Amino acid sequence: MERITATYYIETPLDPEKAAAVLAGEQSSGTFIAVPGETEELKQRFAARVEKVTPLETVTTPAMPGAASPNGQYHRAEIQVSWSIENFGYNLPVLTSTLQGNLYELRQFTGLKLMDIELPASYAQHYKGPAFGVKGCRQLTKVENRPLIGTIIKPSIGLTPEQTAEMVKTLAGAGIDFIKDDELLSSSANSSFKGRVDAIMKVINAHADATGKKVMYAFNISGEIDEMLQRYEYIVKSGGTCAMVSINSVGMAGVKKICDQRQLAIHAHRNGWGMQTRHPLLGIDFRAYQKLWRVAGVDQLHVNGIQNKFWESDDSVVASIKALQTPFYDHESVLPVVSSGQWGGQAPETYRRTNTVDLLYMAGGGIMAHPMGAAAGVVALQQAWQAAVDGLSVEQAAAKYKEFSESVRQFGKK
Amino acid sequence: MERITATYYIETPLDPEKAAAVLAGEQSSGTFIAVPGETEELKQRFAARVEKVTPLETVTTPAMPGAASPNGQYHRAEIQVSWSIENFGYNLPVLTSTLQGNLYELRQFTGLKLMDIELPASYAQHYKGPAFGVKGCRQLTKVENRPLIGTIIKPSIGLTPEQTAEMVKTLAGAGIDFIKDDELLSSSANSSFKGRVDAIMKVINAHADATGKKVMYAFNISGEIDEMLQRYEYIVKSGGTCAMVSINSVGMAGVKKICDQRQLAIHAHRNGWGMQTRHPLLGIDFRAYQKLWRVAGVDQLHVNGIQNKFWESDDSVVASIKALQTPFYDHESVLPVVSSGQWGGQAPETYRRTNTVDLLYMAGGGIMAHPMGAAAGVVALQQAWQAAVDGLSVEQAAAKYKEFSESVRQFGKK
Repeated sequence: MERITATYYIETPLDPEKAAAVLAGEQSSGTFIAVPGETEELKQRFAARVEKVTPLETVTTPAMPGAASPNGQYHRAEIQVSWSIENFGYNLPVLTSTLQGNLYELRQFTGLKLMDIELPASYAQHYKGPAFGVKGCRQLTKVENRPLIGTIIKPSIGLTPEQTAEMVKTLAGAGIDFIKDDELLSSSANSSFKGRVDAIMKVINAHADATGKKVMYAFNISGEIDEMLQRYEYIVKSGGTCAMVSINSVGMAGVKKICDQRQLAIHAHRNGWGMQTRHPLLGIDFRAYQKLWRVAGVDQLHVNGIQNKFWESDDSVVASIKALQTPFYDHESVLPVVSSGQWGGQAPETYRRTNTVDLLYMAGGGIMAHPMGAAAGVVALQQAWQAAVDGLSVEQAAAKYKEFSESVRQFGKK
Repeated sequence: MERITATYYIETPLDPEKAAAVLAGEQSSGTFIAVPGETEELKQRFAARVEKVTPLETVTTPAMPGAASPNGQYHRAEIQVSWSIENFGYNLPVLTSTLQGNLYELRQFTGLKLMDIELPASYAQHYKGPAFGVKGCRQLTKVENRPLIGTIIKPSIGLTPEQTAEMVKTLAGAGIDFIKDDELLSSSANSSFKGRVDAIMKVINAHADATGKKVMYAFNISGEIDEMLQRYEYIVKSGGTCAMVSINSVGMAGVKKICDQRQLAIHAHRNGWGMQTRHPLLGIDFRAYQKLWRVAGVDQLHVNGIQNKFWESDDSVVASIKALQTPFYDHESVLPVVSSGQWGGQAPETYRRTNTVDLLYMAGGGIMAHPMGAAAGVVALQQAWQAAVDGLSVEQAAAKYKEFSESVRQFGKK
């Protein structure tokens, strides 16, 4: 019978073997009291199993409140626990409750982070994965051999649909591939969802008619289920190609329902993610997180960016991109969304460390505030990526490309 | 115009006033670039506003990775930030992204916890709150003037529907008010959802026909949207009164959709909650958390219990119960679900500190492992609560009540 295996990074005042056993007990059958004639069989079949315990460092200050250590020592370890697929079958919320449910409440742990999961082969049949993924998003935007270049419209909240559409027009004219709503904007007092779709798709459709290129716009449909479905339909009817969902805020059941429609590329915004991963000994690592959302079927997923303005280290960003590059069943690859403080200067380092152009590379000021205008801003980003692929440094790229050299002058100071 | 106010507990290497301004900027309009003629008006209308900054202690070790302090000092503070309802209107996922989205990514914070939120008056018109709540759950179970006594069937996973129904029969005969599925069990290889509903509701309906009392059984419907709705309908058709949802795993959009059906009491299981709250300087406090789920319309919500087996302190449990006791619009009150290591011995302390019997009091071993049998176990719990209300101590209650005294002998050692 297929099993699902989870790897946790733990800290515990107990012997890690014992702590692992507590976790396995809590997250499966609980106490096995006698059920006539079946106890051992039940246990074999449904109990979670500790597969491996790898002791790591011992520390004297616990990472989080929990049971006190009698000798002042807290042991860190990597543990692997597995469950039979028979326990939950194909049910992502119950899988989530199994992998990351009450176990975080256990006083036996002063640190607990879900690092990775191994999902069974049969998930490939049950779950279709991204309807578009890298390949589909490239086809929709007609971008080959370089990252999709994207941007977000600022101010994030406050513009009317007409003002937003005016910016979209400028950006489309500048050669942008992708534009997105802010995650804080879905339908606001002066930018109703439909009003925004109407105004923007008019511009995008006209641009597509004129040039053959349809800019992908990620409209933020995040909301309640019926509302999301109605908005989704409205985008489809209006000729749009993408919908954005704040996956943590909407939740797994809602996101899965949206992905299942399979008519639009789903831009998965992970806002709230910092809460889940920022502490080194609490929550979830991106390796595990991205697998759950790939099963759900998102097409694009945020990974932050090299030299970002947030807390995340470059190593962590690179690991996230590599996680998304790792093949997952025969599913389409998910497009990593690189953003936060990006202006093109990070392209060489991003490419050097990930060796891929299968990215959605988002820049804000790098485009709109380019000294030679937005069109030059887009060109500069394309140049940055060409230079990156050619193995040039930022300095070499600046020497070679006029528009990019202006970016370096404008944004390269910090 | 109505505003929503959030209170955060923060830690920052910056002046807290400055950090608060960064948060407000990130979580609303972002950078305001010049939009002809409207910049100041836009700002007034849509920018988040720092309402209050209360400096607290300063520490020299940051709680989490973030920006380093040049002088080695990290300042803690309580800050209040507000948003106009115009930014999102009535959209719980976007509200969530606003209150607890990208702000956790900000390097300017080495600690950030959402402590409380104030929601606008108009939410009372838009959101109906619990369809049943305390009053409705009491009516459905015909329990007055004492907590509902509940239990969970063990082993959590592994029993067949028939074995489960057999236990339900025993428990119903013992006078139990409420029984629930484990959160890890929805539909497993040897307990299909429908099979379990069929077997259990046959017992519960027969018991109700014979005695006039219908035991409330919380079937775990957690799953994808369509699946949850089908399971919900099946419970309704079968004469059930309650459905359980793992709220964090299903997510806000899915839970709201289920609550909106308003035919069954919704038992909200908060597994995964430890991840969101366990670190003192990361995540969300229950005060804020419970408000979001009350808006969504859950009827029962877990709060852990006094002297529980998990990490949570008694003070934290009491604060959670009090949060749920706090009136919220004209909504029905949510029934706090007290569980984890409860056997009745905690009733006097629970009552002394919360002064309420509007609780769903869950005991496992305290019922099934009672020396005189399950019926005596249920009676012992009722006695414990009568004693609690009468102001008796555990010792005094044991002297007065036979069944409870046996509980003390059996479970009172640890």
